[in-house]
Amino acid sequence: MAHQFATRATLSCVMAFLLAISATAQTMNADRTWTFSYRPATDVDKVVLETSFGGKEKMQKTADGAWTYTTPDTLASDMYTYRFIIGKRNVLDPLNAQVVRDIDDTLNYFFVPGPLAALYQEQRVAHGKVEQLWYPSSFDADMKQRRLSVYTPAEYAQNSQKRYPVLYLLHGTGGDEVAWLDMGRLAQIMDNMIASGKAKPMIVVMPNGIADLDAAPGQSPYMQGKASHMNMSSWMGRTEAAFPKEVMPFIEKNYRTITDKPHRAIAGLSMGGMHTMAISANNPDLFDYVGLFSPQAISPLTDKNIRRIKRVTKVDSKIRGFANKVASFIQGTPTDVTEQTMDIDIYADMEGKLQKQFAQSPRLYYIAIGKKDPLLTFVNSFRKKVSAAGGTYLYKETDGGHSWDNWRRYLIDFLPRIF
Amino acid sequence: MAHQFATRATLSCVMAFLLAISATAQTMNADRTWTFSYRPATDVDKVVLETSFGGKEKMQKTADGAWTYTTPDTLASDMYTYRFIIGKRNVLDPLNAQVVRDIDDTLNYFFVPGPLAALYQEQRVAHGKVEQLWYPSSFDADMKQRRLSVYTPAEYAQNSQKRYPVLYLLHGTGGDEVAWLDMGRLAQIMDNMIASGKAKPMIVVMPNGIADLDAAPGQSPYMQGKASHMNMSSWMGRTEAAFPKEVMPFIEKNYRTITDKPHRAIAGLSMGGMHTMAISANNPDLFDYVGLFSPQAISPLTDKNIRRIKRVTKVDSKIRGFANKVASFIQGTPTDVTEQTMDIDIYADMEGKLQKQFAQSPRLYYIAIGKKDPLLTFVNSFRKKVSAAGGTYLYKETDGGHSWDNWRRYLIDFLPRIF
Repeated sequence: MAHQFATRATLSCVMAFLLAISATAQTMNADRTWTFSYRPATDVDKVVLETSFGGKEKMQKTADGAWTYTTPDTLASDMYTYRFIIGKRNVLDPLNAQVVRDIDDTLNYFFVPGPLAALYQEQRVAHGKVEQLWYPSSFDADMKQRRLSVYTPAEYAQNSQKRYPVLYLLHGTGGDEVAWLDMGRLAQIMDNMIASGKAKPMIVVMPNGIADLDAAPGQSPYMQGKASHMNMSSWMGRTEAAFPKEVMPFIEKNYRTITDKPHRAIAGLSMGGMHTMAISANNPDLFDYVGLFSPQAISPLTDKNIRRIKRVTKVDSKIRGFANKVASFIQGTPTDVTEQTMDIDIYADMEGKLQKQFAQSPRLYYIAIGKKDPLLTFVNSFRKKVSAAGGTYLYKETDGGHSWDNWRRYLIDFLPRIF
Repeated sequence: MAHQFATRATLSCVMAFLLAISATAQTMNADRTWTFSYRPATDVDKVVLETSFGGKEKMQKTADGAWTYTTPDTLASDMYTYRFIIGKRNVLDPLNAQVVRDIDDTLNYFFVPGPLAALYQEQRVAHGKVEQLWYPSSFDADMKQRRLSVYTPAEYAQNSQKRYPVLYLLHGTGGDEVAWLDMGRLAQIMDNMIASGKAKPMIVVMPNGIADLDAAPGQSPYMQGKASHMNMSSWMGRTEAAFPKEVMPFIEKNYRTITDKPHRAIAGLSMGGMHTMAISANNPDLFDYVGLFSPQAISPLTDKNIRRIKRVTKVDSKIRGFANKVASFIQGTPTDVTEQTMDIDIYADMEGKLQKQFAQSPRLYYIAIGKKDPLLTFVNSFRKKVSAAGGTYLYKETDGGHSWDNWRRYLIDFLPRIF
């Protein structure tokens, strides 16, 4: 114990300035390709680089003992995540202090300079405030409070009488109230787009949408010792049913919001897109702006929906490796799903609800999805449903798949269109 | 690219419920010892467990391919960090979603249940709000804003006229504005101690004290690509000089504070303890409560101080391994230290300043340090200085060393004594 403390002391605080001798693991070359390098402390047979832009690549051992990988091409301006893999276990880059959690993965990230990355990084503009706080909740008997994040624009503090429109921004399965802030770079995007006039000053509210959890890992006693905070509970309608009763009144009471339909937007990614769809359809008078980013568009976990999910995972050759495990897991799941834990009404008669929603002419119903997204098939069915309900929607089909680079881009595309 | 996206999509969002099949890597046994287990995906020769309670331990390979380590004794209730080491590189526990950054290390953590851990975990009490925001700054020509964290107690939002005392809480070298929240469990400690009446409702302000950085990794454009945010710049007096001119006026303008000496406290750990000492001594009329937690008590980096630091690292056999590297690094450092980047006045005539500070009888001058802390020798000298200046102080010498378990405990000990 003493030894440990003394060593950590030295390393942590007094003397470890040697760590400050800076180096970077990702370097842009003269031809604008990027070279990643990693130097294991002991001999290893193989080092793999896994990135958000190129999958898994074997690194090459160099004469001086470092392993390197150079991209075959330049990288477009963006935020990218990566990690090293040794013996199939993930290793963070000791030369990059920028680490982000994506669901239950911990990844390094970096920015390739350019117009897109500039939106994701702090610029010399006025910065808004980010808050984490708890609101009273009663839909789960055990949890009396749930945590949410709120972004208020820089000018909010200066204009103590002014009221603002609100965007409710929802995360995906396994996400939480900080997902849009961490992987989504929400605060930076808002600061930069508000400063340039591309987005109106607005409040952005990011609740935790996992019904059986109240907060992100480390902030919730329900997370202790758990491997994952991915949780089927949020496909059951309870989060969606509670949203207008709990989240919205709390926000409208505690923030200077404009509380009418033209000044409320809701958007979400993946499962959050499904929640967005359900919440807005069940409450057709609440939101004038609705954004579905790569929405799951399939819920709750009825037998029929489970069969559809299984079918899609099987037809996609890229993900066949997962299919059996997933199928067998899903097969076992409905035993946990009782009527008691579901709020089926939320998803009942969706056609009729969509009709009512579109009869009230929301100003924007926005759907975006990547061409490679396995959910594309569900989104295509859903778009037909929207049309059948007399709805008009703005549709954006992009490159790429079910990933944060797209979700950040959809947000950037969505923001100038609201309020 | 497509392959990566499809794979990530599956893993991240649509189907990866298999990850939710929960297991834990740390398990309390019937005899209240703890067993850690790790299952590498491929054969490895050796797995080491590094923890905050016991240093490095070789794990044992079991018949079924998992590696385990069982503590020889029970563990006291606390928050503990750990990680696995394979081939000298650190690997996070895939069975524990609780991950925390400590300076530039990323570590897993868990709680051993009991009274101390209960203070560090969310309980069913009213939760305060945590905010991150930016204040205007001018002491660095390049940085016009710097980021800080603010905790406001749960009742702050309910009592819109009530004003509150403020604790300014400073981090160590390499820390930042989120260190006390993440490793320090500040929000949980405040919620729990306020709820039990052990601490008065108060505002807690956690600025970033690194002079050459404006914000934590990922929140600062100055961090891009850097291995570390440890930085000598904060030993030069600039942070301390700017504090009463920039941080305090911003807080007192934007929060409902009580702006007199009896309602202001300042405390800090390690380098933050040094800053606390300097700020309170240079501004003897500002703070009635001063807390130095394992303070460095040595600054700025004059030749004399550098010699003292080198001497201490050499006499401590536990850290001899670092001494040469550190010494040679420090040797090179003063070339970067020019009068321009220092505010020597802050540390000039400290004896005279302490005399003036104690002449104004602060209600509490609190010093705490661990018996194994390499800084103990500096603290002993500093205590003599305080006595020579006519000061009285509350002194707490504890087990352990220069580590977060002590800093959390010092905070818990300090809080009931202020306001």
